[in-house]
Amino acid sequence: MQLDNFRTVAANYKVIFFDAFGVLKNYEGVLPGIENTFNWLQSTGKEFYVLTNDASRSPTELAESYYRQGLYAITPERIISSGMLAREYLDLKVNHGTVAYLGTDSSAHYLETTGLKTLPISKVDLADVADINALVLLDDEGYDWNTDLNKTVNLLRKRNIPVIVANTDETYPVSKTRIAIAIGAVAEMIETIVGKQFIRFGKPDAQLFMFAYERLDNVVPRGLEEQSAGYIGKRDVLMVGDTLRTDILGGNKFGLDTVLVLTGNTQAQDVDVQIRSTGIIPTYICESVLIS
Amino acid sequence: MQLDNFRTVAANYKVIFFDAFGVLKNYEGVLPGIENTFNWLQSTGKEFYVLTNDASRSPTELAESYYRQGLYAITPERIISSGMLAREYLDLKVNHGTVAYLGTDSSAHYLETTGLKTLPISKVDLADVADINALVLLDDEGYDWNTDLNKTVNLLRKRNIPVIVANTDETYPVSKTRIAIAIGAVAEMIETIVGKQFIRFGKPDAQLFMFAYERLDNVVPRGLEEQSAGYIGKRDVLMVGDTLRTDILGGNKFGLDTVLVLTGNTQAQDVDVQIRSTGIIPTYICESVLIS
Amino acid sequence: MQLDNFRTVAANYKVIFFDAFGVLKNYEGVLPGIENTFNWLQSTGKEFYVLTNDASRSPTELAESYYRQGLYAITPERIISSGMLAREYLDLKVNHGTVAYLGTDSSAHYLETTGLKTLPISKVDLADVADINALVLLDDEGYDWNTDLNKTVNLLRKRNIPVIVANTDETYPVSKTRIAIAIGAVAEMIETIVGKQFIRFGKPDAQLFMFAYERLDNVVPRGLEEQSAGYIGKRDVLMVGDTLRTDILGGNKFGLDTVLVLTGNTQAQDVDVQIRSTGIIPTYICESVLIS
Amino acid sequence: MQLDNFRTVAANYKVIFFDAFGVLKNYEGVLPGIENTFNWLQSTGKEFYVLTNDASRSPTELAESYYRQGLYAITPERIISSGMLAREYLDLKVNHGTVAYLGTDSSAHYLETTGLKTLPISKVDLADVADINALVLLDDEGYDWNTDLNKTVNLLRKRNIPVIVANTDETYPVSKTRIAIAIGAVAEMIETIVGKQFIRFGKPDAQLFMFAYERLDNVVPRGLEEQSAGYIGKRDVLMVGDTLRTDILGGNKFGLDTVLVLTGNTQAQDVDVQIRSTGIIPTYICESVLIS
Repeated sequence: MQLDNFRTVAANYKVIFFDAFGVLKNYEGVLPGIENTFNWLQSTGKEFYVLTNDASRSPTELAESYYRQGLYAITPERIISSGMLAREYLDLKVNHGTVAYLGTDSSAHYLETTGLKTLPISKVDLADVADINALVLLDDEGYDWNTDLNKTVNLLRKRNIPVIVANTDETYPVSKTRIAIAIGAVAEMIETIVGKQFIRFGKPDAQLFMFAYERLDNVVPRGLEEQSAGYIGKRDVLMVGDTLRTDILGGNKFGLDTVLVLTGNTQAQDVDVQIRSTGIIPTYICESVLIS
Repeated sequence: MQLDNFRTVAANYKVIFFDAFGVLKNYEGVLPGIENTFNWLQSTGKEFYVLTNDASRSPTELAESYYRQGLYAITPERIISSGMLAREYLDLKVNHGTVAYLGTDSSAHYLETTGLKTLPISKVDLADVADINALVLLDDEGYDWNTDLNKTVNLLRKRNIPVIVANTDETYPVSKTRIAIAIGAVAEMIETIVGKQFIRFGKPDAQLFMFAYERLDNVVPRGLEEQSAGYIGKRDVLMVGDTLRTDILGGNKFGLDTVLVLTGNTQAQDVDVQIRSTGIIPTYICESVLIS
Repeated sequence: MQLDNFRTVAANYKVIFFDAFGVLKNYEGVLPGIENTFNWLQSTGKEFYVLTNDASRSPTELAESYYRQGLYAITPERIISSGMLAREYLDLKVNHGTVAYLGTDSSAHYLETTGLKTLPISKVDLADVADINALVLLDDEGYDWNTDLNKTVNLLRKRNIPVIVANTDETYPVSKTRIAIAIGAVAEMIETIVGKQFIRFGKPDAQLFMFAYERLDNVVPRGLEEQSAGYIGKRDVLMVGDTLRTDILGGNKFGLDTVLVLTGNTQAQDVDVQIRSTGIIPTYICESVLIS
Repeated sequence: MQLDNFRTVAANYKVIFFDAFGVLKNYEGVLPGIENTFNWLQSTGKEFYVLTNDASRSPTELAESYYRQGLYAITPERIISSGMLAREYLDLKVNHGTVAYLGTDSSAHYLETTGLKTLPISKVDLADVADINALVLLDDEGYDWNTDLNKTVNLLRKRNIPVIVANTDETYPVSKTRIAIAIGAVAEMIETIVGKQFIRFGKPDAQLFMFAYERLDNVVPRGLEEQSAGYIGKRDVLMVGDTLRTDILGGNKFGLDTVLVLTGNTQAQDVDVQIRSTGIIPTYICESVLIS
């Protein structure tokens, strides 16, 4: 493993995409000193976006959480969440009736649009499901697993409706040594049981990267050379993450250079083995995104 | 689909292996009239065993349940359960310390042997797990999924111990139209998360069939022809079940002729499609094991 | 199953995305009469693109094949192939050295760029692989499976390099009743054996849809309402395909309305069962894209 | 990793089960000096069996191969192969017609019984398959992969017949640094393509262990205590293998103590990582079975 300095690496790119958990924050909150990184990004005129497999809150609520911790640079429009993709899907493809969900009420609230109301699985009446036109798996919190997962399985046996998984993560860390099961793992269990094909949003899938990429100003138009003065292409974007199977695989596949940081899921002593065993190869490895 | 009469089919065999749920009983209790089948078996001198993916109770408790419903023929020694295989494994391979478990207290009690004590996951202290030498997944009931499944994942990150899945079923029916998630599906989720290989007991695995086969009297000894007068071989045994992927696949693989009945998981209108799509082919199909 | 008329459905959209095999052509060539459909599209001013999981030839060669069969509307820039995504990946991420490949020489030729040369697996010397920086799985033809698949496995044990699967299809039809194994299935076998994570391009992945979508003129800019006069949004695009798991799942997930046609992988008598069992639901079902 | 001496470990057991490849022999032939181990076993009155995932030859031919290399102790009745299980299955369950196969002619010859003839896939006429009642996947050699694997897929689309996989290994070593794809991996690819459930014989499945266990003299009868003088129980049997996922997992699950040796698939520097990551834990680890 060869460690690079984050500032030295990032200096060569015009845009930085950051994963959130394990990169900017951990179970204790935002990394101490992280504001230096964003000060540097702004002083050097670099654009940045936060790409997060998170459907537990809206981008506005996510940004507020950074703000409360003193990180003012991450405004709502800088955040691209898998929940936003779920919301776009519902808006385009399920435009009337009720969407049942597993998650907290506040996570569901964000999905409501004109003509679409949301209903927690706990309040679904299995004898009266004709109005339910989609199911969204949002979060591992907000419901009783014993009763509501069984109810979910039975709903899907009665209604052949699209099922949207708004966060593909299998686990997330809750302390230095412990993890919790995330909705992505629960979704796989239910998908296996009912034998259907769910619709997944979140890294490593290209759609989250595309959402962020489309927000960039001055993306090089089709037909023009990327080198054309002032334009931005994929070669100008750097993806930074802590997880090989989501951040790095997804970034690589989208055509971006990638940085693996060691402040989250991947620990220094495991890096070499994991890269060798998965075949997922980051362009760079950095201790963290902190800039001293 | 060609339907055969169960009595006509069974008349050609000396031994009958029955699955329990969906064959002898359903969510409402034992099938009305099932005692006629067992009277006929006994009057014709046929041996029988019940092979069940069930680790929620001991064979003695399972037999008592049949007895209370008026089915006296099914005595404890006629029942071969996946729980018995789990118990044998612990007896042979984990002979000291503590076995943590997911399930009801009564399911765990059956596993206790000299030198081995059991502890529900809810009572495990993750800071003090050095004495835990195995984990057994017994049942979907008896614990809080939200907290105890997370605790299970963290236990397996701290201790590299064998994990025994004592029931491989993914679901079980709880009413005419509803099903519940069984411990087998929960086990797959946890196995995926921790990335380890669990030890599974239950159909279609050969071990349950072997346990029953070893109990038969007069099994043909090695070296002798099966046709030798009075001996029993695999050609003399018929396996009866309601599920292609467990009962029929397992019976076929063990070398037995098989009967699919339509009183459980497999419904008449789906039989042909399921046999064609899975490639699991029962020797016979019967409406039920009932004999009028 | 309710059948709709393709012209009636398509009339409501400004842009049509077509799958190729099973929609525009089959094992015998382009569907007789298909030129009427394209005449109608052009007379009504609709845009169209062909989205194909095909890396066996370049878009130019694919277009020539349509041209030779009298279908002049499908010009190279109307074709978006998974091979183009593989090419972009190599261009952005693997810019020097040698790319080993499984496929025909002509499929590989398309991948060559400045600084990158290609080498068939049959010519790889396993004792001298230091210069090989990627492996691309292009096609099921052009090599000896017995020797070259084994060689591929051994290359991947010596070199930890990205592996690109340029066609995710598992099979393709070669006559009315027979199919052949496609490179996607071979890729899964090798991926399982070496335990690494390959990079897949092709439907249902969003990237192929994105490539086509980016080519549209007048896509609605960020911030503007889609309804704004003259702009095109995802609601204006219809995806047409013959396969639920690639065309329909991918189109749905990208946010497009979808048409399943019955001229390819999905046969009329199986439609209802397949939709129910997979949970992949097309917006419409049409006999074919032919217009009388 | 704590290394034990094989003789010291084995001294505590009455019966030894050996895997063949990676334990008794490798790509260069039987391990030099291995005859000492068998001399010691015989001088101390220990029983032994060779349990091998091999369907390429009959036990007689396998034994001849040991004999030719000067290892006389391994007689045909000491060899339990997965091919024997396939043969028993065909004998019990498919007793007439034709069995198609992938493998060498000599591997198929062993399967022929009264009333059953074998036919290589290369000679199958897809227009005339009504007489084919089973398919057996025996070996990775003896046929052309390009044509015969495609033919196999098409056969399984025309005939809903049992498919027997007579060797579950995914790969096997052909030299110090190279491996080859085994029929088990090919079987998985075809099973995925046709979507059916194949019948697999071989470790870690219990059936191979059961076949060997049934051959032991003086197995403790049901009802008697294992400790009864002179009887043999599972506690008296030691399984020795080089592969965690087959030999050790299977032996553990069957209730046997297990030894991992480092002369085959598992190398000394990887042992600890592999045991930790798979959760498959051998009772002992030994350098080899060689006795000096």
